[in-house]
Amino acid sequence: MKTISENRAFGGVQGVYSHASTATGTEMTFGLFLPVEAETGAVPVLWYLSGLTCTHENAMVKAGAQRWAAELGIALVFPDTSPRGDGVANDAAFDLGQGAGFYVNATQSPWSPHFRMWDYVTEELPRVLFNAFPIAEEAQAITGHSMGGHGALTIAMSFPGRFASVSAFAPICNPTASDWGRKQFTAYLGPDEAGWAPHDASLLMKKRGFDGPMLIDQGTADQFIDLLKPESLATAMTEHRQGGSFRMQKGYDHSYFFVSTFMEEHMAFHAAALHA
Amino acid sequence: MKTISENRAFGGVQGVYSHASTATGTEMTFGLFLPVEAETGAVPVLWYLSGLTCTHENAMVKAGAQRWAAELGIALVFPDTSPRGDGVANDAAFDLGQGAGFYVNATQSPWSPHFRMWDYVTEELPRVLFNAFPIAEEAQAITGHSMGGHGALTIAMSFPGRFASVSAFAPICNPTASDWGRKQFTAYLGPDEAGWAPHDASLLMKKRGFDGPMLIDQGTADQFIDLLKPESLATAMTEHRQGGSFRMQKGYDHSYFFVSTFMEEHMAFHAAALHA
Repeated sequence: MKTISENRAFGGVQGVYSHASTATGTEMTFGLFLPVEAETGAVPVLWYLSGLTCTHENAMVKAGAQRWAAELGIALVFPDTSPRGDGVANDAAFDLGQGAGFYVNATQSPWSPHFRMWDYVTEELPRVLFNAFPIAEEAQAITGHSMGGHGALTIAMSFPGRFASVSAFAPICNPTASDWGRKQFTAYLGPDEAGWAPHDASLLMKKRGFDGPMLIDQGTADQFIDLLKPESLATAMTEHRQGGSFRMQKGYDHSYFFVSTFMEEHMAFHAAALHA
Repeated sequence: MKTISENRAFGGVQGVYSHASTATGTEMTFGLFLPVEAETGAVPVLWYLSGLTCTHENAMVKAGAQRWAAELGIALVFPDTSPRGDGVANDAAFDLGQGAGFYVNATQSPWSPHFRMWDYVTEELPRVLFNAFPIAEEAQAITGHSMGGHGALTIAMSFPGRFASVSAFAPICNPTASDWGRKQFTAYLGPDEAGWAPHDASLLMKKRGFDGPMLIDQGTADQFIDLLKPESLATAMTEHRQGGSFRMQKGYDHSYFFVSTFMEEHMAFHAAALHA
């Protein structure tokens, strides 16, 4: 593993590291904030999965999460959103290819050799982290924004018992019924829609839900709201009797100003579950 | 004035606007955060002056100030750091020309036609703000980072009574004795060093100081600390018996991780002065 940078922040360290990934066959970069408590023992961790076009860096510098992570003694992990590099397939559109991995394992050409973000985020990167840093494997929570909210929700529901809590900011809620989903799943997973269902938060919610607290924030002025389909997840949550909150935030859009506004409450929400 | 963008943030609005500037002869862009209290009346304002290479945007998205400004009912203004555009002189170095205005009025060719950031920040932009937004002219404070800390300190000391408080993050403290200063003052102001003194915070501190509270934070691991010369300002502050705090923050560098870490305390410091 290589250290790209380490900056002192809020009494802890905001690091950026890279490593050769077996899952993606590329060098992968991630951000990791460790609070001061990590100097003396293992700390709980919150995964933050980012949205379309983002790298590991966007949330790390714009979401304002470190302030609260430091106060609560929680580590933050910021994975990249796709494999990258000259030998990696790409597309001219911002919502397919590099920066748009959608947290799935691609089975279709030309994506299948490298676009294995499901395995990367759920298997490989956790092992890298637990081996190299003082992070408590038994105290994990997960959140994300937009495409990353989709990732957080689908991963949380697919690994019962792994995450104490899940939250999302303006998540893609129903990708099998949206142009943010159908296009990418067709490209990455192929035309058989049966293979798409494990990657649709609303379908997973109807089928199994999440065994823990859940918090969703969605801005009413979100310019992408028709693609996100919050109504599908809100309906599924209530029909499934899922414990949790689905909050429509009046006047907020899809930007990091929205994310940072509610970050404090999401961090407190996860801290309550992690320290329980 | 043109509205570039407006995003709801922390209950208020983070706007970006541009206007034709008489001072610089260019279109100038600035960021303005208005807390919800601005919907019903004029609010106090904190000026944030940015450092080398920055636009109006860097601090707006990375300093994390809106959270505290919203809680305290204070507006935030983020001016650009220089004139910009095809017709504006520039230099290949990052520390001269566009993005490096140094908050002076240039008298030398080729800079003098547009590089008039002193007049822009101290005269023109205040008038634009007070005319167009619910901001209380009698309740102003000022801060900045690096070159912007230099700007904040020199402006605060040059306009007695205008600012209730001044603070700075890793400011350029003694530009007349540093390569971050001598190079730029020679280019913008010419070789006569007598003209430089009004733009040196340590010299201004020796001569007159600031009639109000002052707060300086400087990281001990700052990679530019030899250029910033914090010892010159600390010495001048103590010799002048200036009320205020000069804090050396162990292990912190020059990045926005440092700025955002101490933003909460700077905002509380200014709020105490503004609401006094």
